[in-house]
Amino acid sequence: MSGDRTRPRRRSGRRPGNVDTKAAILDAARARFAELGFDKTSIRAVATDAGVDPALVHHYFGTKQQLFAAVVDFPADPEATLSAIDTAPVDELGATIVGAVLSVWDSPAGPGVVAMVRSMIAGETQLARSFLLQVVLERVRLRIATPQDDGHARVALVAAQMMGVLIARKIVGLEPLTSMPAATVVATVGPSVQRYLTGEIGTATA
Amino acid sequence: MSGDRTRPRRRSGRRPGNVDTKAAILDAARARFAELGFDKTSIRAVATDAGVDPALVHHYFGTKQQLFAAVVDFPADPEATLSAIDTAPVDELGATIVGAVLSVWDSPAGPGVVAMVRSMIAGETQLARSFLLQVVLERVRLRIATPQDDGHARVALVAAQMMGVLIARKIVGLEPLTSMPAATVVATVGPSVQRYLTGEIGTATA
Repeated sequence: MSGDRTRPRRRSGRRPGNVDTKAAILDAARARFAELGFDKTSIRAVATDAGVDPALVHHYFGTKQQLFAAVVDFPADPEATLSAIDTAPVDELGATIVGAVLSVWDSPAGPGVVAMVRSMIAGETQLARSFLLQVVLERVRLRIATPQDDGHARVALVAAQMMGVLIARKIVGLEPLTSMPAATVVATVGPSVQRYLTGEIGTATA
Repeated sequence: MSGDRTRPRRRSGRRPGNVDTKAAILDAARARFAELGFDKTSIRAVATDAGVDPALVHHYFGTKQQLFAAVVDFPADPEATLSAIDTAPVDELGATIVGAVLSVWDSPAGPGVVAMVRSMIAGETQLARSFLLQVVLERVRLRIATPQDDGHARVALVAAQMMGVLIARKIVGLEPLTSMPAATVVATVGPSVQRYLTGEIGTATA
């Protein structure tokens, strides 16, 4: 019974087969992402490890990025945020990123994000760190990389800025930042993020 | 014997009396700072609580700021950093602050600072938070406050920026920020800090 993981069993009411299959996919994906990282992990390999068809992985979890988000138990669907980053004009990326990140923090998913950052700081979640680096920051980096500057330093600076605002605003409770309206934070921090992304920053990693 | 805390006992070799007296002063100061905060705590009151002369508190611990640093077990003497902030030209405060903070992080005191920030994020050290707010940030704020803008939001933004760089560089290990030379970090982050302190930031707290 429990050995049949090749496809979800259809039953009326609760479907324990789906739960088993999803768990098997997540276990396989966790092992692959941990060992090989995001780029070198393929949906096909995860499906093979879990003994299911690749289409079923897509069916349950969507894209590889969404599968990674599920593995690290990311509390929100990152696609909403990341697609905003994909489509914003480059000179509005700073405000777009700050606005998108704040809207996740202030959503019902916010406490989950705070918990994830806390455990990342406590050194407990290597996979969450990889998710941040290989999925989120990479998506931003691709928007601003040039032949002269691969953008790695720029997106690391953006990540540092945003982590600092998260911690000051949501964890340490540093007033008046904690109760500052989101629009004010965007107006205030957005230009710093924009400068890190596209401005003169005194460093270039060719 | 142990009840005599009014002055340090002079002996050759080890001086347990000093240790007792210092501990009594620290206990009294910890209780006062926790209850009343930095501003409303006086060296005189601490001395009275500890049953010693105020001059002895100064003799052992220096200024009230240094006493607070000792209470929260701050791993460096903050005066070196804070006096640099006092004397820098206002339009060089950003680079001065980033440079001074980096030099503490990269000193033998660095791991202690990281540990303090970690426990602050874990919600364990209310007094360390008070020290940051009431001593360190207040000293910066006094340099940039104007009749139109009390500077509270500005120094909170600076604190958020610096915490983010600390965490990215020293805790999460976000490359290339972790191995970036200090001078490059100053050139890169300094202008953001300067903007938060004295630039147009889209907010004003009158």
